[in-house]
Amino acid sequence: MSKFQDIKQAAYLANMQLPELGLVLFTFGNASAVDRENGVFAIKPSGVPYVDLRPEDMVVVDFDNNTVEGTKRPSSDTKTHAVLYKHWENIGGIVHTHSTYATAWAQTQQDIPIFGTTHADHLTVDVPCAPVMSDEMIKGDYEYQAGFQILNAFQDKGLSPEEVEMVLVANHAPFSWGKTAEKAVYNSAVLEELARMAYLTRQIRPDAPRLKDALIEKHYERKHGANAYYGQE
Amino acid sequence: MSKFQDIKQAAYLANMQLPELGLVLFTFGNASAVDRENGVFAIKPSGVPYVDLRPEDMVVVDFDNNTVEGTKRPSSDTKTHAVLYKHWENIGGIVHTHSTYATAWAQTQQDIPIFGTTHADHLTVDVPCAPVMSDEMIKGDYEYQAGFQILNAFQDKGLSPEEVEMVLVANHAPFSWGKTAEKAVYNSAVLEELARMAYLTRQIRPDAPRLKDALIEKHYERKHGANAYYGQE
Amino acid sequence: MSKFQDIKQAAYLANMQLPELGLVLFTFGNASAVDRENGVFAIKPSGVPYVDLRPEDMVVVDFDNNTVEGTKRPSSDTKTHAVLYKHWENIGGIVHTHSTYATAWAQTQQDIPIFGTTHADHLTVDVPCAPVMSDEMIKGDYEYQAGFQILNAFQDKGLSPEEVEMVLVANHAPFSWGKTAEKAVYNSAVLEELARMAYLTRQIRPDAPRLKDALIEKHYERKHGANAYYGQE
Amino acid sequence: MSKFQDIKQAAYLANMQLPELGLVLFTFGNASAVDRENGVFAIKPSGVPYVDLRPEDMVVVDFDNNTVEGTKRPSSDTKTHAVLYKHWENIGGIVHTHSTYATAWAQTQQDIPIFGTTHADHLTVDVPCAPVMSDEMIKGDYEYQAGFQILNAFQDKGLSPEEVEMVLVANHAPFSWGKTAEKAVYNSAVLEELARMAYLTRQIRPDAPRLKDALIEKHYERKHGANAYYGQE
Repeated sequence: MSKFQDIKQAAYLANMQLPELGLVLFTFGNASAVDRENGVFAIKPSGVPYVDLRPEDMVVVDFDNNTVEGTKRPSSDTKTHAVLYKHWENIGGIVHTHSTYATAWAQTQQDIPIFGTTHADHLTVDVPCAPVMSDEMIKGDYEYQAGFQILNAFQDKGLSPEEVEMVLVANHAPFSWGKTAEKAVYNSAVLEELARMAYLTRQIRPDAPRLKDALIEKHYERKHGANAYYGQE
Repeated sequence: MSKFQDIKQAAYLANMQLPELGLVLFTFGNASAVDRENGVFAIKPSGVPYVDLRPEDMVVVDFDNNTVEGTKRPSSDTKTHAVLYKHWENIGGIVHTHSTYATAWAQTQQDIPIFGTTHADHLTVDVPCAPVMSDEMIKGDYEYQAGFQILNAFQDKGLSPEEVEMVLVANHAPFSWGKTAEKAVYNSAVLEELARMAYLTRQIRPDAPRLKDALIEKHYERKHGANAYYGQE
Repeated sequence: MSKFQDIKQAAYLANMQLPELGLVLFTFGNASAVDRENGVFAIKPSGVPYVDLRPEDMVVVDFDNNTVEGTKRPSSDTKTHAVLYKHWENIGGIVHTHSTYATAWAQTQQDIPIFGTTHADHLTVDVPCAPVMSDEMIKGDYEYQAGFQILNAFQDKGLSPEEVEMVLVANHAPFSWGKTAEKAVYNSAVLEELARMAYLTRQIRPDAPRLKDALIEKHYERKHGANAYYGQE
Repeated sequence: MSKFQDIKQAAYLANMQLPELGLVLFTFGNASAVDRENGVFAIKPSGVPYVDLRPEDMVVVDFDNNTVEGTKRPSSDTKTHAVLYKHWENIGGIVHTHSTYATAWAQTQQDIPIFGTTHADHLTVDVPCAPVMSDEMIKGDYEYQAGFQILNAFQDKGLSPEEVEMVLVANHAPFSWGKTAEKAVYNSAVLEELARMAYLTRQIRPDAPRLKDALIEKHYERKHGANAYYGQE
């Protein structure tokens, strides 16, 4: 039995949730789970349909993109996962999808404005959209650079990956993460719903105002204050 | 066996309908049922996924927010439910969701206009949107004040909770109620559909007129007149 | 056994298809089937949830709205069905729903423009929207007048109910019909899809042109010409 | 047993996927699979509901539209399939649907702009929209001409059917193809999703820019370059 059984199982379960939550068409998505002690993560193999996926198909890869265990080719987005795990030491799982509404926002190259408490219950800033890669980065090691595209956007905007667990990659699609792969999946579904609600809000009222500061601060406090009492509902 | 068995069962069934009707993602919603004789209501515990929910998990709380029975923490929206039950003596159940279209309208801070008979069969005014809380109220006891935000909106607009069984809370999401928890769930689903139809109506024709007075009066009469013959269809 | 067994069974099956096709929420719809020989039709009883419905619950009513068989109250839209059966001698079934996109168009008080061949395969004119009732008609026998609202619209526009098997009633919702109740259900689902496609077409291109005459004529011929070879696909 | 058993089975399976993927309402679609050696293809019979369809119902037709095997009438779009198989020698399967979003774009008579990598992973140009047929072509052999409408559009735009496996037919609906009938179904579902994402992108930001050249080239290379490593994810 593999010494990486736990992360392979966690990655498997996370991947299987993606079609169930309506977040992927065919194989347009992947989830991974990290083992910090051994410096590796388990990720979905490339191109295997979800219905055929088994826990033992997960590929174990280190943070420099070397396959450590597994016979299949890992997801083509593996380098992006590796960069994020390497630089963000507190994240335990990553999910990438092309979910419809989040991807549409990514295609507009715009942040998703914070319009309400559904959003503020999860993050108290706009969902950031990492700007389009420079032509140099695109011509280089594309999927590797996609990781830096995300890291740079967080640095430029002064965001922390512990506070903001989701991002849009301009012209591409969303990534999300969390303490576990399961939480990353949760964030992926939340992001799709925030994207959908923000889309509708703008359609109904193009000049809809962002959530006012007092409410943003209240929600930040509920989560982080001395008397945090935050729970999703 | 609990003396509150009936309301716990009613609240449980109402909560379980929410995901089935597509009104909640994860645990973004809660339903409660009141026992007027004992001055308490049963409500969903905080953060328990719907699939794990059992009738005995319901928490029984009085109108001043004291837990009377139950080992779990009640929903973080419990104070809002308590305020509404305390001040509106004829309502038997309350539902809160973040259903997509109703929440989008709430995020625009606008009432949902009455555009047709689907709407008029349920209420003969626009669906009211309670204005955003003042900064003072937000900084105080937030969830408690949310109850007053709704009460105040009804008072300011001269609405009765027996006539209008639904409200949008600006920048937050909808609440609905009714003589029973089951009816509150029904109203919650109706509100989401009215929100969706009104959204589409405005998209197709931005200057679509509200329903004309003669039709509004007719529908009001059908429900309340001497020869009321109203039935959903 | 009832001598109206056949139409009761046909009406039952038609009604049960409505929730299955996603055309109704709760009990917001009804279907009926006619027996021309006996001058009666079978229709859904008022307010009975679809899950509880049985063939024997169908109410048999004549064209002047008298109940001929059945213990339940017939649908509140029965008078509208009766008027249509009485004046349109070739229709065998009628369906009324509040399906989302068709109802949104009805709320805009606009015809649904013919934008493509999906539409032209079913009718070669815009889907007509019967204008809002006059205040006098509303104050009178409302549901009875709704039948005439539809008849008048067809007369004013010079349409035949054999050619055009669907209508929007302004500020209300759609009605459809056909040689059988089953065909009326089919038309109801087709109408909802045409309404959705026309909505999207207008959103993408507000000045999208109607289908050109040569295509409209071609589709009319395919259905009615000497060498009619029309089949849905 | 039929010597065309393999293509009949392939066409059957492809047709059955269409309702499962939500791409067809009732019988509004058809799929076919080709046997190049024998110069024939198997296609869905006309008007048979998907639930009743069996592999042996598939009709085998040659490239000049003569039925070679089968007792049912082939789909009314058979001539269009025949023309495409005759002129495009490398395609193995064709699918035609009236899927909602792709049909809406077809009704606008516009190409679907390439807005992101979901699109670029499948084709590196806009999804072409074949212009409306001339009145002469419409009055002639309509379904036969529809094949040429597609061929002409590809010729005029300088596109190859091996590179671009999908097309919109203006005022009608989409066609897709691929090396196999299964791949044609896949492309049909991808097209519907691209159409939906592009619609949303335009709604959120009407002046959203097309994907920049460096990204288009990168995706083209990933698929075709010396070191092609392309895999859907």
